[in-house]
Amino acid sequence: MTAKSQKNWTGDPSELLRVGEGFRLADVDPSSTPGYEGGKKDGQEDLDDGAAELDELQERLYAESRTEASNAAVLLVLQAMDSAGKGGILRHVVGSVDPQGITLTAFKKPTKAELSHDFLWRIEKRVPQPGYIGVFDRSQYEDVLIARVRGLAEPAEIERRYGAINDFEKKLSDTGTRVLKVMLHISSDEQRDRLMRRLDRPDKHWKFNPGDTDERLLWPKYMDAYQVAFERTSTPWAPWYVVPANHKWYTRLAVQALLLETLERVDPQWPAATYDVEAEKARLAAS
Amino acid sequence: MTAKSQKNWTGDPSELLRVGEGFRLADVDPSSTPGYEGGKKDGQEDLDDGAAELDELQERLYAESRTEASNAAVLLVLQAMDSAGKGGILRHVVGSVDPQGITLTAFKKPTKAELSHDFLWRIEKRVPQPGYIGVFDRSQYEDVLIARVRGLAEPAEIERRYGAINDFEKKLSDTGTRVLKVMLHISSDEQRDRLMRRLDRPDKHWKFNPGDTDERLLWPKYMDAYQVAFERTSTPWAPWYVVPANHKWYTRLAVQALLLETLERVDPQWPAATYDVEAEKARLAAS
Repeated sequence: MTAKSQKNWTGDPSELLRVGEGFRLADVDPSSTPGYEGGKKDGQEDLDDGAAELDELQERLYAESRTEASNAAVLLVLQAMDSAGKGGILRHVVGSVDPQGITLTAFKKPTKAELSHDFLWRIEKRVPQPGYIGVFDRSQYEDVLIARVRGLAEPAEIERRYGAINDFEKKLSDTGTRVLKVMLHISSDEQRDRLMRRLDRPDKHWKFNPGDTDERLLWPKYMDAYQVAFERTSTPWAPWYVVPANHKWYTRLAVQALLLETLERVDPQWPAATYDVEAEKARLAAS
Repeated sequence: MTAKSQKNWTGDPSELLRVGEGFRLADVDPSSTPGYEGGKKDGQEDLDDGAAELDELQERLYAESRTEASNAAVLLVLQAMDSAGKGGILRHVVGSVDPQGITLTAFKKPTKAELSHDFLWRIEKRVPQPGYIGVFDRSQYEDVLIARVRGLAEPAEIERRYGAINDFEKKLSDTGTRVLKVMLHISSDEQRDRLMRRLDRPDKHWKFNPGDTDERLLWPKYMDAYQVAFERTSTPWAPWYVVPANHKWYTRLAVQALLLETLERVDPQWPAATYDVEAEKARLAAS
């Protein structure tokens, strides 16, 4: 199923980008644009059309949740190497939705208080309520990605976490929250170019951290950690999607398409009035 | 001072709309457009230009806060009678800023847990961190507005709250948070028309609550409660602004202008690099 509003797809992104049996991250070309026959300009037009549809779908989701007939919510989990475009997704895809319908959480390095609890403690507090699109900018997956690469936890603990994440996401799914997990995939060369542009522009210097270059040296280890995470946690109830991210316009369009597809499956409807409309019109007119 | 990006102001909205000595809410015409000589179309163009400026100013504010040289934040407090346009401000003014830079809180009827604490307990937890624009959709003022009109607290307690609010806002202001308090002011007739349109459209029925008509009967009491709140809490460090709200385009433009003016006074700058830029370029190129 492709979104109604995005015209130029020739294939279904929710099929083409999904991590299934035998998936290998190394086989994904970060410069590819799977399933989309248009170019950058078409992509921008489709993104604009999709924004209006996404905004309405979210409002319907919220309206339906107010009648207590629905527990439906959406949780978008974003993971990526630095500079892959999470910020652009937040600004241009999430940012096109009414902010009243979004709960956004950026998970940073855990605080001392957070480290004193199980790794899911801070995550569970931020899951979206019915009617909302929750967005995680980084997530529970940091605890099996950087934690694995940097040895921040014992191997046995990291093994335990894959299962704990699956149980957690199953419970979310069973109680009405659609879990959409997206990894934005850039190439190492593209990352170097993007970081270099930050160094070239004084108004972007604050975005650069010398530690970013150190992390690049661990690139193959991160790719391995992602591969393992995909194998262990891409489930029927919460599949992973890998979106090629060397072309920003495609990344945004594809993530929007995945959100639209998720909401169209929920298919939220404007709820009927729970009061007598004509009687209320008369009462209001007299007030 | 008027915003650089909004061309058609003939007066300064931060002067014209501010609640000062001798202010009387009853003298404000909700259909007026103080200080703006353009019409709806000019207003829309100015709003688009202002959106780009507001987005950049917020990003600068955030960037500057990362260097720890600045504690500056902005808190926008929105209060209004139902249907006056708070939602439109959130969608069209706040929604034009990168969602990563906004923390939005909608304060509903207090829960049991919230009622067991002082009225400011839930408020203090949601003040913006440095670098952010915090937005309160309703606020601490409900505790002196609906609380006064509906007698939800003893008169002595309500008296105490005006002072407590002033102390709280002074502390915020002293620690770098600019407090911008805005009341959107519609007429009772305009509200009736807007509520009637909700009853006329099946996709808006969920937004109507029969209780809205009951609240209308208390209109004069609410206006009195606002008048008292203005007199008691419009301070040099956190003045109130009353924005005529019968014309939605003006309301949005004026609130954007007040935000722009607030941020232009902060005048946040892109921070200088805290590392050796040329050395980092070389290290990155080799990575």
